[in-house]
Amino acid sequence: MEIYILSIFPGMFESVFNETIIKRAQEKDLVKIELVNIRDFATDKHKTTDDYPYGGGAGMVMKPEPIYRAMDYVKEKNPNVHVILLSPGGLIFNQQKAKELSKMEATAIICGRYEGFDERIRFLADEEISLGKFVLSGGEIAAMAIVDATVRLIPGVLGNEESLKEESFENGLIEYPQYTRPRIFRGMAVPDILLSGNHKKIKEWREKKAKEKTIKWMGVEDG
Amino acid sequence: MEIYILSIFPGMFESVFNETIIKRAQEKDLVKIELVNIRDFATDKHKTTDDYPYGGGAGMVMKPEPIYRAMDYVKEKNPNVHVILLSPGGLIFNQQKAKELSKMEATAIICGRYEGFDERIRFLADEEISLGKFVLSGGEIAAMAIVDATVRLIPGVLGNEESLKEESFENGLIEYPQYTRPRIFRGMAVPDILLSGNHKKIKEWREKKAKEKTIKWMGVEDG
Repeated sequence: MEIYILSIFPGMFESVFNETIIKRAQEKDLVKIELVNIRDFATDKHKTTDDYPYGGGAGMVMKPEPIYRAMDYVKEKNPNVHVILLSPGGLIFNQQKAKELSKMEATAIICGRYEGFDERIRFLADEEISLGKFVLSGGEIAAMAIVDATVRLIPGVLGNEESLKEESFENGLIEYPQYTRPRIFRGMAVPDILLSGNHKKIKEWREKKAKEKTIKWMGVEDG
Repeated sequence: MEIYILSIFPGMFESVFNETIIKRAQEKDLVKIELVNIRDFATDKHKTTDDYPYGGGAGMVMKPEPIYRAMDYVKEKNPNVHVILLSPGGLIFNQQKAKELSKMEATAIICGRYEGFDERIRFLADEEISLGKFVLSGGEIAAMAIVDATVRLIPGVLGNEESLKEESFENGLIEYPQYTRPRIFRGMAVPDILLSGNHKKIKEWREKKAKEKTIKWMGVEDG
């Protein structure tokens, strides 16, 4: 899978993409990530990527040309690229979307900055995605989250495919409570059932707890 | 404001916290971020931070001791610290929560890894937060999003307080469409109203467009 990230702060991604599973996925050639610096596609000598808004108002607006030119570059590399624009007005990202993206041949993610982008940039996008109902300084951290959630679902990226099946949101449930050693820690004990060796009972207990956790969660979410 | 981030991958934050507003906020002494490496608080010579789950199952589970000991260290520095555990079962982060956190004196964010953590770690937390209905490899990217969304709301961090008032989710609305130069770009023109100089009409148009965008958005979200 190819992932192109269009940003005016490509340096932000460095320490994130050089650790953990995103690094591993790149080393295994399961994903190829290219950071495309929007500033490189600016046309004036000051490499301007934003400008004042028509009609007045606070803040600067990302200019259309550099982003269009950066996308021209990406589409020359792969004309089938699926283009995502990170925008507060987009569909809220979720596990289903991560699964969809994990099956794509090539994805481009355009990171806006919080003050906004020229509306014409929206025509570049196949879809608009938002990480949630909150405002970030820019799309960069949202892009990291999307890449992480997506890349880990590509077959072969995680060592242990078993883990994927048991985790939260698979089967629509939050994962059951987990315990490890020590058996008693600062006065808190591991539930006896987990030490019983009775695999059927343990499975039942875990299913019950996962459901309880999920029901509790359904009540508090979406604030 | 003090922010403590407990993670086994503190290096991931480097390139993110050294750019843009989080960097600026630290330089202005408006926020002090300390990355606490959970591994430094492991008690065995191999610095183990995870272990097999009681009752069997795939994956490793984060051990309680290193995280408790890391929190002991943080609480010694600031006993009033508000403790957030990043967990798929937590309250979904939103702008309201960012505002709440931006008024805190000190916050600690505990980053779990995707395979899970010992249930007893939950007792350390004042609240559990999730970034959304998707699974990340760990809490690190979620912590970045929370820190970014929160820090930018601290008075003085953004140069232009005006921007904050007009942005998405303030007044419950997605921000209105923005345009900048050129007036015509690849055949797409800026709406005439924005060039009219009629500030009353521009304001009305923007309010109408913001409402339209928001209504469209309300229909597609929360997949």
